This record gives sequence, structure tokens and C-alpha cells, in this order.
Amino acid sequence: MDAIGEVHRAGWARWGDRTKARPLPEGVAKLLGQVFDVRPPAPVAELDQVELPPSALDAAALSALAAIVGAEHVHADPAARAAHGAGKSTPDLLLQRAGAVPHAPEAVLCPADTDQVVAVLRTCGEHGLAAVPFGGGTSVVGGLTTPAPYVALDLRRLDRLVAVDPISRTAVLQAGLPAPRADELLAEHGLTLGHVPQSYEYATIGGFAATRSSGQLSAGYGRFDDMVVALAVATPQGVLHTGRAPASAAGPDLRELFLGSEGAFGVITEVTVRVRPIPAQRHYEGWRFDSFEEGAAAARTLAQDGPKPTVLRLSDEVETMIGATGAGRGEGGCLLIVGHEGAEVAAAVERTGQVLAGLGGTPLGTAPGEHWAAHRFDAPYLRDGLLDAGAFAETLETAAFWSALPGLYAAVREALFATLPTPSLVLCHISHVYETGASLYFTIVTAYADDAVAGWQRAKEAANEAILAAGGTISHHHGVGTEHRDWYVREIGPLGVTALQAVKQALDPSRVLNPGILLP
Amino acid sequence: MDAIGEVHRAGWARWGDRTKARPLPEGVAKLLGQVFDVRPPAPVAELDQVELPPSALDAAALSALAAIVGAEHVHADPAARAAHGAGKSTPDLLLQRAGAVPHAPEAVLCPADTDQVVAVLRTCGEHGLAAVPFGGGTSVVGGLTTPAPYVALDLRRLDRLVAVDPISRTAVLQAGLPAPRADELLAEHGLTLGHVPQSYEYATIGGFAATRSSGQLSAGYGRFDDMVVALAVATPQGVLHTGRAPASAAGPDLRELFLGSEGAFGVITEVTVRVRPIPAQRHYEGWRFDSFEEGAAAARTLAQDGPKPTVLRLSDEVETMIGATGAGRGEGGCLLIVGHEGAEVAAAVERTGQVLAGLGGTPLGTAPGEHWAAHRFDAPYLRDGLLDAGAFAETLETAAFWSALPGLYAAVREALFATLPTPSLVLCHISHVYETGASLYFTIVTAYADDAVAGWQRAKEAANEAILAAGGTISHHHGVGTEHRDWYVREIGPLGVTALQAVKQALDPSRVLNPGILLP
Repeated sequence: MDAIGEVHRAGWARWGDRTKARPLPEGVAKLLGQVFDVRPPAPVAELDQVELPPSALDAAALSALAAIVGAEHVHADPAARAAHGAGKSTPDLLLQRAGAVPHAPEAVLCPADTDQVVAVLRTCGEHGLAAVPFGGGTSVVGGLTTPAPYVALDLRRLDRLVAVDPISRTAVLQAGLPAPRADELLAEHGLTLGHVPQSYEYATIGGFAATRSSGQLSAGYGRFDDMVVALAVATPQGVLHTGRAPASAAGPDLRELFLGSEGAFGVITEVTVRVRPIPAQRHYEGWRFDSFEEGAAAARTLAQDGPKPTVLRLSDEVETMIGATGAGRGEGGCLLIVGHEGAEVAAAVERTGQVLAGLGGTPLGTAPGEHWAAHRFDAPYLRDGLLDAGAFAETLETAAFWSALPGLYAAVREALFATLPTPSLVLCHISHVYETGASLYFTIVTAYADDAVAGWQRAKEAANEAILAAGGTISHHHGVGTEHRDWYVREIGPLGVTALQAVKQALDPSRVLNPGILLP
Repeated sequence: MDAIGEVHRAGWARWGDRTKARPLPEGVAKLLGQVFDVRPPAPVAELDQVELPPSALDAAALSALAAIVGAEHVHADPAARAAHGAGKSTPDLLLQRAGAVPHAPEAVLCPADTDQVVAVLRTCGEHGLAAVPFGGGTSVVGGLTTPAPYVALDLRRLDRLVAVDPISRTAVLQAGLPAPRADELLAEHGLTLGHVPQSYEYATIGGFAATRSSGQLSAGYGRFDDMVVALAVATPQGVLHTGRAPASAAGPDLRELFLGSEGAFGVITEVTVRVRPIPAQRHYEGWRFDSFEEGAAAARTLAQDGPKPTVLRLSDEVETMIGATGAGRGEGGCLLIVGHEGAEVAAAVERTGQVLAGLGGTPLGTAPGEHWAAHRFDAPYLRDGLLDAGAFAETLETAAFWSALPGLYAAVREALFATLPTPSLVLCHISHVYETGASLYFTIVTAYADDAVAGWQRAKEAANEAILAAGGTISHHHGVGTEHRDWYVREIGPLGVTALQAVKQALDPSRVLNPGILLP
């Protein structure tokens, strides 16, 4: 197997590198045995055991594509194809564990630059193939596959920091750069992205842009879409460049048409981002509130009146109790994590503390904050452990205006409990705050007797219905993919669909680009 | 004449209400005599003296439109038509002064609600008429007229504060609300927009959204497009609602397709905005810097590292000398206005002062700040005075990343001096700052011997070319209209045009909506 497969072998049927997996914490393992009727799962199929139909790529297409990217960058072996045939949702992992990759690409291509991507898209159109961009492969919404014959465009060779403008504090990053590598390259200039989603270890710059990623530091650094000042997008019609000023009144903002477009309108190949100096100081601490409601009111006050911390994350009573964040256990109530990063944070820490104390918060010191920060990437590995133990774990998320948040919280929980097996755990936190509202992130742990994929689909659909009915958006930071598509279409309405379909038709008349994503 | 005409009679051929006009300051009048070869202009034609061809609206169209909005809300008299046939650019005013309204609407309609706008658009399509939305009528880029037979949709009856959500700090405002009235209604709830462009006295909420307006408080409150959380847009295909959460990863951001669309994709009828509490404190002061370069470096430091004031506005040496901002004269160097507004501003004022002093600034106290604030709406009235005296005055603006700003500043000045009559005055200020860049706003004062409109067009085109070549955007806050269209098309490139034309075709297949705006 070549390097392409090797990279993915370690993470096959799991969140990330299996060498980073940790055993389930004792408390969690005990809970599983006590509460859930978990059954030992079937052994996990290995990547090499996956059986795929032979690649449908004919010799003419193969040779045309190889002529563009070089034969050594076309991978049609089963392992490479299987490894690029799913994302990282729990249903994806469960299928992989069973050795099933229902929609693997016919081949994996690794183009070297924007022009090669354009040429590949055109050639795909000529040969009746679709093309799906692949960055870190961390989609949890079915964003990486399509039932149509397709090639995966693995962007790993677009891995350069193209330019840094220290005066304007911008940097041009190629789309295939994994986030840690991007930060490593920026650090040579004393700069950082400040974008740390849970997928940070694996996800790429292009993926962040294409899915409107939002990171754990969003209160301080903004969402990824806030950071993007310009994009280069490869389409079958050629390359589109958008964004040439910090702000403009020159017409609609075309950046915002490609941010969140998930490969349906083009392949984002370069992203110019606003960057910031690496913070000299950081301070993370925990606060306890009696209830989710009181904690949310405190988070809202900071978001609206300041001081606005860099990290603001409030667990509900259940999440606090379970200690899913790894700390705050035994204190009861709700745990609020507050993180400050910057050139100097002492004043902000003090003023924030005064506000929180005035709103009923009890300071828990830095230990819960540091614990959270140290374990910020653990949750998906914990999911691997739960799946290994035969339990089921998955997440879903939304956002709404502050006044709608309590109703949204109640409605989603109600929908989940009405459709999940009994018993089930539903944990929730607020992790992204804005002046006008916040996100809600739910974690579900349960045990399905038989078909978990179908069972979860029913629960997820009920949650989606509840989200729309309660005024939430179908996704705050996971994206639309195929899984949210039907609800997304209802969220934007028929005229929104009409507008986007027109853009799709104009830029991709042969429907090469990730068909089935976003739009029906 | 009915109320529609009466309102516009006072502002005919001038910026605003003629009763607010003030005589030219003595210094300026003296300068005109000393420096420029100004000639006493021809007498100003009155609104009632304008001769228009008879309205081309036939009886069938008139009756169909009257059936929708009510006969009393259809105005086909010459005064109403003439008053809606131009914006407020200097060429617009010069034509009006000569009694010329080359592209007056066939009638002015005042619809009552979103559904009436949809019905009007459909009826216009059936009768071969275009429709151009009209709010405050303050466009300075030719955004209000089209050579095709058209009706003006005067949105003055959409003047309600529909809802306030004090928890989420949002408000739903109808598009025809003038900014002062919107703030008056919000003030009843202790809230404010925080959007104060120079057009504040006349411009409307819908116009702010449709043109991506940016106000003098943008450093603190953001641009108007930053404030918009949702829109209702009337199109010939029906009503489109977009924006249902503070942030979303659900696909492209459709709000950003209609913000800045200047009536080409639909008529914005309701805008949900983020609002803020009326600030309890305000503090405006002046600082002197030796050069525009040093002042810009200081502004950049505040924009990037904070503390970020509410107002930040730096005049170049010439603007400071002329005292176009009304203060700082005699001090030499460059005047920086720094304004803070908020619940409590003392700490921010102090920290800002430390930063500015450390960067070579000399404090001038609050007098220049208060003087600027007191005269913040004066400049367009000053233009009226200059035109009355036979001089020519106009403005243009752009924005770029910080590293491109010095080159952009030099290039625009060079282009203007190469094409303007000698002598000419070119003043400039930075009035909107961002982490990655800033705006440049140029004021031109000169005297044209004969055809000022054609003369200015040559200078403006040279400036537009210089802006594109130096990496600026063709407009930071004036918009595209018809005047910037050819450069806008080059700024977004052929694929950007393709995408927007597809949206236009999908939502407005009969090309009713403000044809000729934005796109060719």
C-alpha cells in the first residue's frame, strides 16, 4: 500500500490515529455496565479486508487524469479508495467497522495545484465522473461521498504557506494544509490562526472554509468564515478569485457564496486568512453556576457587554455531572470554562471574574480550565472507546438567537428522548457565543439492540425536525453534507434553493462537483 | 404637489433640506477666490421647472399598479417623477441645477408592505416596466435610475419597527425607515443601531442593507452588513427570508448575496439587525501625528492590537490643513479623531491614549473631537455651498489591506492630479479601520471651466483605474450603482459575473429589478 492508504490505515474505522486511542475511563466503563445493556461488538474489519467492486474508471479516463496529475498521484487500489469513501460520523465508523464502504470513489487523485484541479474537473466532466474534494476526511455529515461514480480529490499536495503579509496580518494558505502544519508554518512568523476546532489534529484549511468551521476559541478569534479575506476556487469554468479588501461595498460578497459550499460550486484551493500574533499569555479557569439557565445568562452577558473571553463553554447539568469535560464533577450545577489568550490577560481575567461573580458564579480556579484545555481533543477518541465497548455515541449541534435557546434546548432533548432507546444519556453544552445568540452541542450516549445506524437515523431526524421547529439552524459548525440536506432546503426555502441551484448550474453545468451535497 | 414632492422640493438639486444650508465658511470662500478661477454659476432650476416627457405608463399598467398600492399611492406628476430621478452625486446635482433629469421614472409608487412589492414587481414584468427601489435617495453612484422605462418604488410607507427582542438584542425594522426615525423608535427600548454614516439624516434601513453602508462608528459597531442578522426580500418569484441564527454552517450565507445587491436581485423590505444599548458615556478627542504615515501606523495598531475605539478617523496633511474636518488647523501634521462610546469609557480612553502617545501622537484634547462630532453631517452641505459659489466638489472612496494602502493613496492622488484642472485640492482621510486594512476617502475641490460633468467623469475614471491597479476595491461604502459597474465587473472577474448573473436570471427572469445596476 502506498502512503495515501498508510496514512488512513491508522485511522480506519476510528476517529484518528489508533496509536492515540486510550482505554475508556474507569468511571465511564463502569457506567456502561451499570446503565446500558451493551453487547460486545463484532470484531472490527481492517481496511485491507474491505471488498469493493473493481474501479469503474476506464482506461481512457484513467490515462487522461494521469496525464494531468501524474500517474504516481492516481490511486485506484482498494485501500486508498476505501479510506476515502467515508467521513467520521458514527454511522460512517459503524459501517467501516463492518467492512462496508457503500460509496467508495473509483480512484483517489492528488493534484498539485489549482490549475490541475481545474483540468481534473473538466476531464471528469468529459468522462461522466463526479469529483469530491477530500481534505482531512473529518466530515460528520456525509459530505465526502456520492452515489454517482466519482473520484476523490485528495488535496494533500496543496500544502504550502504561499505568502505572509505581516503588516496586514494576512497569510495565503493552500487548501490541503492540515491545521497543525498551518500553525507550524505561521509560527515561524510569530503568527497563529487561532482556529482550534475539535477536528484540529486532522482537518485542513480548505475544509474549514468549505464547511464554515468554528473552533473552540471562536469567542476570541471568530469563526473560520470570519477569518477568510480571500479565496481561490477551481471550477470547471476556470479559477475564481474573490476578496480583495478588508471590507467592501462592491456588490454581494462572493466569498460568502463559496464559504460553506462544500465543494458544490468549486474546489477551494487557496485561502487568504487574517492571522494574529501568537498570544504571549493564556489563562483558563472554571466557574460553577447553579443551573444551565443561570450559566447561559452569564455567558450572554459576557458576549453582549464584555469582556469577551477567548473561550467560553458552558456544560449543562448532565454534561457537568458525567464529567464529559473531564472536570467539575462532584460540584453539581453547571461548569463554565473561561479562557483568555492575548498579549496580556490579567485585566480581562479580573474583569470577567467580577462579572461572573456578580451573576452568581462560583470560581473553581484554573484546574478545570487547564484540564479542559489538556483534553480538548479527547471526545472523539472517547467515542472510539465507547464503540469498542458496544455502546453508541454521536453528536449533533445547532444555534439560535438567545431568546430561542431555552426552547430549542428543551425541544431537541424531548425529540431525542422520544426516539432514543431507554436509557440514553443526552449531554449538552454551549461552546460558541455571539451578541445575538449561541450554539448548542448535544452528545448522545446509548446502546442500540440491533441496527444502530437505522435507529440513530430516526433519532437524528426527530432532532432535525425539532431544530427547525424551534427556530434553530440545521448546523452551526458541522455543515450540511447529505445528512442535513433535506432540512437545509427547508431552512433556506424554495427561493434560496433556486438562487443556489442557479449558481451551481452556471459554474458546474455538467454537475461534476460533489453532486448531492447541499442541494437535491 | 402632494407630500411626496413636497419632501423632495426642499432637497432638490442639493444634498439635503435647503433650510439647513449654511453659508460657506469665510476661510473657504476666501480660498476659492484666491486659488480657483470660479465663475458664478447659472441660476438653479426649481423642481417645478423641470420638463419631463409625459409618463409612458399606459392606462392598463397604471390601473393594475393602482389596484395593488391604491390610487393615492401612485404619483405620476412631474415633480414627484423628477424628484425620484436622481441621487446625490455631484453630477446628479449639477444636472438637477440645470433642470435636467435624464432618466426620471414614469411614476412613483408607495407600496405598503412586502406582498405589495411582490405584486408590483410581477405587474411591472407583465407591462414591460422596470422597478427601482428608492429609500432616502442618497445614492452617489447612480444607483436610482435606469434608461429603461421604470417605476420608482418609494418605500416610505414601510416605516415600522416590527419587533424588538431585548434578550437577543435584535430588532426587525422595515426598509423604508429613515435612520433617525429607526433610532428614535429603538430609543424607546433603550437601544440604538450605532450606524451613523454621513447620509444618516436621510438614508433608510433598506438602503443601508442594499448598499453595504458603513458608518462613522464602524470601528465600534461594525459595518451595517455586520449588523444584519436576517432579511426579507421581495422578488418577482415571491418573498425570500434569509438568516435564522447568529451564525450557521448551513451552506453559503444567502444574506451576503442580497446585502450589496442594490435592488438587482430583489427589494429588501425588512431587515433584522443586531442592536445595542444606548451608550451611557461618550468621549471624543483629537490627536496630532507628524505625518499621514505615522498616523496610519497608529490607527493600524489600535485596529490590530486594541483597544479599538468606536470612532477612528485620520485626516491626511492636506485635509488637516484645510480643516475640512473643522479642527486641528494650525497644528500642522495630521489630525486623528478618536471616539469612545459605551457603558464606561474611562479605561479605554486611558489605554488608547497610552498607545497613541507611545506611537508619537500628541494629545489635542476633546475640542477637536467634539467639533468633529458636532459637524459630522456638514460636508455635503458644504458641497452645496461650493456648488453655489461655482466651484466643484466631489468624493470617492476605496479600501485595501494595510500593506497596499500607501501605494493606493499615492496612485489615486497621482491619477486625480493628472486629470483634474490645475489647481485642484485633493484631501484624504482614513475613516474605517479593520485588522487587515482600512478605507481611504478622498474629497476633491476644483473649478471646471466648462463641462464639469464630463470633466469629472475623466478624473473619476482615472481614479477608478488607479484603484483597481493598486489593489483597492472599487467601493468601500458608496456601492456600485451604474458609475462603478465597469470596474466592479473587473474586480469580481468573469466567473463572479457569471455566478451573479445566474442568480439574477433565476430570481428576476423578466429583468424588472433595477436593470443596469451592478451587472451589465
